[in-house]
Amino acid sequence: MGNPQTIWYNKEKNLVETIDQRFLPFQNRVVEIGSLDEARFAITDMIVRGAPLIGVTAAYGMYLAARNFSGDDFYLEMQRAADWLKSSRPTAVNLAFAVDEALSVISDRNTVLENTQLLFDYAENLKEREIEFSKNIGIHGLELIKAISKNKIGEPVQILTHCNAGRLACVELGTATAPIYLAHEAGIPIHVWVDETRPRNQGARLTAWELGEAGIPHTVIPDNAGGHLMQHQMVDLVIVGSDRTTLNGDVANKIGTYLKALAAADNCVPFYAALPSTTIDWNLNDGIAEIPIEQRDGREVWMMEGMLNNEVHEFRILPEKSPVANYGFDVTPARLVTGLITERGVCKATREGILELFPERSLKND
Amino acid sequence: MGNPQTIWYNKEKNLVETIDQRFLPFQNRVVEIGSLDEARFAITDMIVRGAPLIGVTAAYGMYLAARNFSGDDFYLEMQRAADWLKSSRPTAVNLAFAVDEALSVISDRNTVLENTQLLFDYAENLKEREIEFSKNIGIHGLELIKAISKNKIGEPVQILTHCNAGRLACVELGTATAPIYLAHEAGIPIHVWVDETRPRNQGARLTAWELGEAGIPHTVIPDNAGGHLMQHQMVDLVIVGSDRTTLNGDVANKIGTYLKALAAADNCVPFYAALPSTTIDWNLNDGIAEIPIEQRDGREVWMMEGMLNNEVHEFRILPEKSPVANYGFDVTPARLVTGLITERGVCKATREGILELFPERSLKND
Repeated sequence: MGNPQTIWYNKEKNLVETIDQRFLPFQNRVVEIGSLDEARFAITDMIVRGAPLIGVTAAYGMYLAARNFSGDDFYLEMQRAADWLKSSRPTAVNLAFAVDEALSVISDRNTVLENTQLLFDYAENLKEREIEFSKNIGIHGLELIKAISKNKIGEPVQILTHCNAGRLACVELGTATAPIYLAHEAGIPIHVWVDETRPRNQGARLTAWELGEAGIPHTVIPDNAGGHLMQHQMVDLVIVGSDRTTLNGDVANKIGTYLKALAAADNCVPFYAALPSTTIDWNLNDGIAEIPIEQRDGREVWMMEGMLNNEVHEFRILPEKSPVANYGFDVTPARLVTGLITERGVCKATREGILELFPERSLKND
Repeated sequence: MGNPQTIWYNKEKNLVETIDQRFLPFQNRVVEIGSLDEARFAITDMIVRGAPLIGVTAAYGMYLAARNFSGDDFYLEMQRAADWLKSSRPTAVNLAFAVDEALSVISDRNTVLENTQLLFDYAENLKEREIEFSKNIGIHGLELIKAISKNKIGEPVQILTHCNAGRLACVELGTATAPIYLAHEAGIPIHVWVDETRPRNQGARLTAWELGEAGIPHTVIPDNAGGHLMQHQMVDLVIVGSDRTTLNGDVANKIGTYLKALAAADNCVPFYAALPSTTIDWNLNDGIAEIPIEQRDGREVWMMEGMLNNEVHEFRILPEKSPVANYGFDVTPARLVTGLITERGVCKATREGILELFPERSLKND
C-alpha cells in the first residue's frame, strides 16, 4: 500500500512529506513541504485535500513558518501565517481549527526555538489525534454495517460513498471509509459504489484507487447513477464525509452530496456522515445560510486529466467558449441525515444528539 | 449554425446524411448512412441520439433496408430489419414506435419498389412530424417561461437542463430546448445551467455547443451542482426531455434526471419534461418497474474524449483495474414532475392530465 500514512515528518531530510494526490491514480509521487508557502500551496492546489488532512498539513505549515522565522515580531508573524493559511480554503473548518489551536500553544514567555518545538509537537499530536479519530469512527460505524449484514444472508452489504473521505483525506483509515476498512478486515462481505465525483473525480481517482489497493470490492459509477441504484434496492447504506458540520446537524460536504441524501431519503436508504468532531462548527446552526461555499477555478470543469500513451495529460472536454461554474461543496440539511458517525459514537443529526455525545460543549453553547 | 436540421436525405448522393455527434463539439462532421446496418450502427454508437432523432434514423433505416433488398421474402426481411433496429437501444420508445409504424405502411399488394417508396415517404413524414412537434412544444413551453419572466423584473429566467434534449436530439429546435430557443427569439432574458451529464457529457458537449452556436447565455456545471443552485434560488425552472413516458406520467430520461427532480421538489422549483407524444408508452403505468434501463459499455465511464494539441483523443480517467457500471437512464416518478410539455399543450404528469390532451387514447385504454 506504499505509505500507510498520508503525511509524515522525514527526520533525515528535516522536511514534511506527503503523497501528491494530484497525480493519483496515474502516478504515486511524494512531495516535500519545507515552508509555510509550500504548505499553503499543497492545500490550495489540492496536493492534499480532505478536512482532516488539510488540518494536519496546516499545523505543519505553522511549524514550518516558525522554523523559518527570521524577522522581529515572532507572534505577529505567526498570526500572519495563520491568516494566510486560513484564507486558502474557506469551507473546511478543521483548517481554521488547527491553525487557531496551533496559535494557542505558543507563548511570548518562550524563546522562538521553544515555540517552534511546541508547534512541531502540536502538529504531531494533531496527526495522532486524527489517526485515533479515524480508528474510533471505524469502530462505531462498523456496528452499522454489521447490523445490515445480518439481514443480507451472505450477500455483500452495498455501501455508496461520494468523493474521497478515505485514508487519503485523513492520515490513516479515513472517515467514511474507516467502517468499510474494518468491515473488510472483519470478513464481512461488502461492496462499495464509488461516485466518480466531478469535477475533480476524487471518487474515481482516489477512493477507487485506495479501495483497489486494499482489495475491497468496488464499482465506480457516474455521479448521476446513485438515484437509480437506490430506486432498485441496490444500496443498503450511504456513508460520506463532512468538511463542516453545524451544531444542528447540517453537513457541508463535496458538491453533489445533497443529491445523494435526497435520493437516500426518497428510497428509505440510511444516510450517514462520518466525521471527527473537529469538523463540527459549534457556532453554526444553519448550514445553508451560514457555511461559505468555495468557488474554484472553472478550469477544473473545463479540463480533465487522464492517461494517454502512459503519460498524464490535461485535456479540454468542453466547447472552447462555454462558460462554467465550479462550486466546491453543498450543504445537506440535517433532516436528510440519518446520523453522524463520530469518534465518540453514532448520534442523531440534531443539536440534542450531538450534545449528548459532546456534553462539554453544552456549557459553552447554553 | 451549419445545418439547421440534424438529418436529411441527400438527393445527389442518394444517401441519408446526419451530423456525427460523437465528434462534437471538437469537430463538426457529417456522416453518410446508406444501409440498414449503417443506420443501426449510427444508433448504437450514438452518432445520433435523442429519442426523436433515433426514431427518424430508424425510419430511414427501414427505407434503406427496403431499397437494398435482394432476397426472396420482402416482408420477412422487413420484419427482421425491424427487430434488428428495435434491439439497438431498449429504453427509447420512439424507436419501436417508428419501426412498427414503418412496417404498417408496407403491404404485400405492392411491388417492392412501391413499398420502398412508401417507406421513404414515411421517414420523410415522420421527420416533418417531429419538426412540428418541436415547434409546438416550444410554443407551449414558452408560456411557462413568459409567466416566470414577469416576476424577474429584467433579470434572466434561470433554466436548468440535463443531457441534450436539444435540436441535436431531434430534427430542429429540440424538445427541452424548444421553449428556450423561442424565449430567446422573443427577447426574453434567459440563462441556461447546462448539466455536464456524465458519462457521455451530452450536456457539456452537445447542449453547450448548440446553445453557444445560437448565442444563448449558458453555463456548464458538473452534474453534482444543481442541488446547491436550487437551494440558493439560482434556478427558476427545470426542463428536461424524455426517452419514454408512462401513461401515469413517470419519465425515463438520461441517468441523473431523477436526482434533479428530487432537488427541484425539495426546493419548490417547477420541474417539467418536454416531449412529443411519440415518447409516451400508452401501455405502461409504472416506470420504475416496467421500463428497461439500458446498461452501456463501461468504457464510457472509464475513458473520456477530449482535445489535446488540436486533436481529439480518448484517454483513461480511472485506475487501471477499477470496475465500473454504466446505466443509461433513470426513471423520475410522476409525483416529482410538475408537468409535461407536449405538442398539444402542457398537462399534469398524471393519467388524467395526459388523456385530457390525448382523448383518442382514452378509448384504447379504458
